[in-house]
Amino acid sequence: MSLRYLTAKMAQQIDEELMNAAGAFSIDQLMELAGLACAQTLATVYKKDKYPRVLVCCGPGNQGGDGLVAARHLGMFGYKPTIWMPKPGSKDIYKRLHTQCTNLDIPTLATSDPALATSTLKDALAAHDVILDAIFGFSFQPPVRAPFDAALPLLNSSHLPIVSVDIPSGWDVERGNAEGVGLEPDVLISLTAPKEGARLFKGRHFLGGRFVPKTMEEKFELNLPKYHGFDQIVELPGTPEGTTQKL
Amino acid sequence: MSLRYLTAKMAQQIDEELMNAAGAFSIDQLMELAGLACAQTLATVYKKDKYPRVLVCCGPGNQGGDGLVAARHLGMFGYKPTIWMPKPGSKDIYKRLHTQCTNLDIPTLATSDPALATSTLKDALAAHDVILDAIFGFSFQPPVRAPFDAALPLLNSSHLPIVSVDIPSGWDVERGNAEGVGLEPDVLISLTAPKEGARLFKGRHFLGGRFVPKTMEEKFELNLPKYHGFDQIVELPGTPEGTTQKL
Repeated sequence: MSLRYLTAKMAQQIDEELMNAAGAFSIDQLMELAGLACAQTLATVYKKDKYPRVLVCCGPGNQGGDGLVAARHLGMFGYKPTIWMPKPGSKDIYKRLHTQCTNLDIPTLATSDPALATSTLKDALAAHDVILDAIFGFSFQPPVRAPFDAALPLLNSSHLPIVSVDIPSGWDVERGNAEGVGLEPDVLISLTAPKEGARLFKGRHFLGGRFVPKTMEEKFELNLPKYHGFDQIVELPGTPEGTTQKL
Repeated sequence: MSLRYLTAKMAQQIDEELMNAAGAFSIDQLMELAGLACAQTLATVYKKDKYPRVLVCCGPGNQGGDGLVAARHLGMFGYKPTIWMPKPGSKDIYKRLHTQCTNLDIPTLATSDPALATSTLKDALAAHDVILDAIFGFSFQPPVRAPFDAALPLLNSSHLPIVSVDIPSGWDVERGNAEGVGLEPDVLISLTAPKEGARLFKGRHFLGGRFVPKTMEEKFELNLPKYHGFDQIVELPGTPEGTTQKL
């Protein structure tokens, strides 16, 4: 039985079930474990002595929240993260997660003016070693709107390594980078289970989100890989295109 | 500068600051990371092929909540945890954490009758390989009340290895097992920073709770040890009795 790649609808459904009766998780818990997995993935591939300065790019949704948790853990690991967050999320948890970063002296780039957001990003790219992409998640719907429409090409052309959270920003969750407007990351950390679009990803691919109850795993026929020991992430051997069926 | 051992008052103060403006953490986040650290400590010392059956003993307070999080992660790691929880906590988070365990098919021993709680524990000890002690935490005040007064000697005489969370149950947070009624664990996982009483602990001593902002660490002069890489726990070299001052 091979690993299932999720449609957008399944990803949404699993996310909901984790937080309702079948899982009973709070969003605080899920984001904490997801963000920790993202930080551990980046730290696995890009060691802090060579890649200390991490530019954490956050969108306004839950994906951005994962990014903020990851930024905090990267700070605890000894990296020097900086947050680029041109559209802060409005949810209470988003604000709390951002305050936690501020309490850790993690700087956030001033980006209140959209035009400024792009030039700020340009300057920031020159002063960082690796990018954590937490801009868009599995609920992203095209088109890419400002200021992210200008940001994605900038990130791609920066030649910095990119670690994307869950699905590379700008990708269609099911069809991948079909429009060609998405990021081209070096590393992907899928959360809970990989999404259909990730079949087309060719870099190093990790899985995190070790919190899916066995009953849910069976119900959705996820066939998750075995995590080692008490690890919170596992590297996937590759992208076995076409070996699992859509639901 | 050596590691500080906390008085009960300092432990309380740090706990509060983590959740108010200085930290801005939610209890869901702190318990998730604390419980994960507990599960990882047990898994570091007692491998699941030799010690698969973990009896997770939970008190009614936040310590019990840490135990429930640890039970869930141990289940995810492939252990077979069972929960002994004679006095379930009344807080909403406690109930949610317990539901998460139930969703993972982790059994909870029926213990509604206090007399039954003791006999149930006796039977359970014969069918388990290792104990996770999450009964009393740093806010424990003597005396040990029923059914825990009967439980602690039973746990001690079981000859099963015991991993205690934060401070061994029954110990005075500052004076240790002065009354002689406390558990005698083999392993201790201190959370955030070790407590004064833990100076008298002679087994393997770990630290977890890698979430203390640098400013708080400096304010309380904690002199925390360096965690390795992205680990969530670190083993302490020993108990350097008398080398740090009380606040």
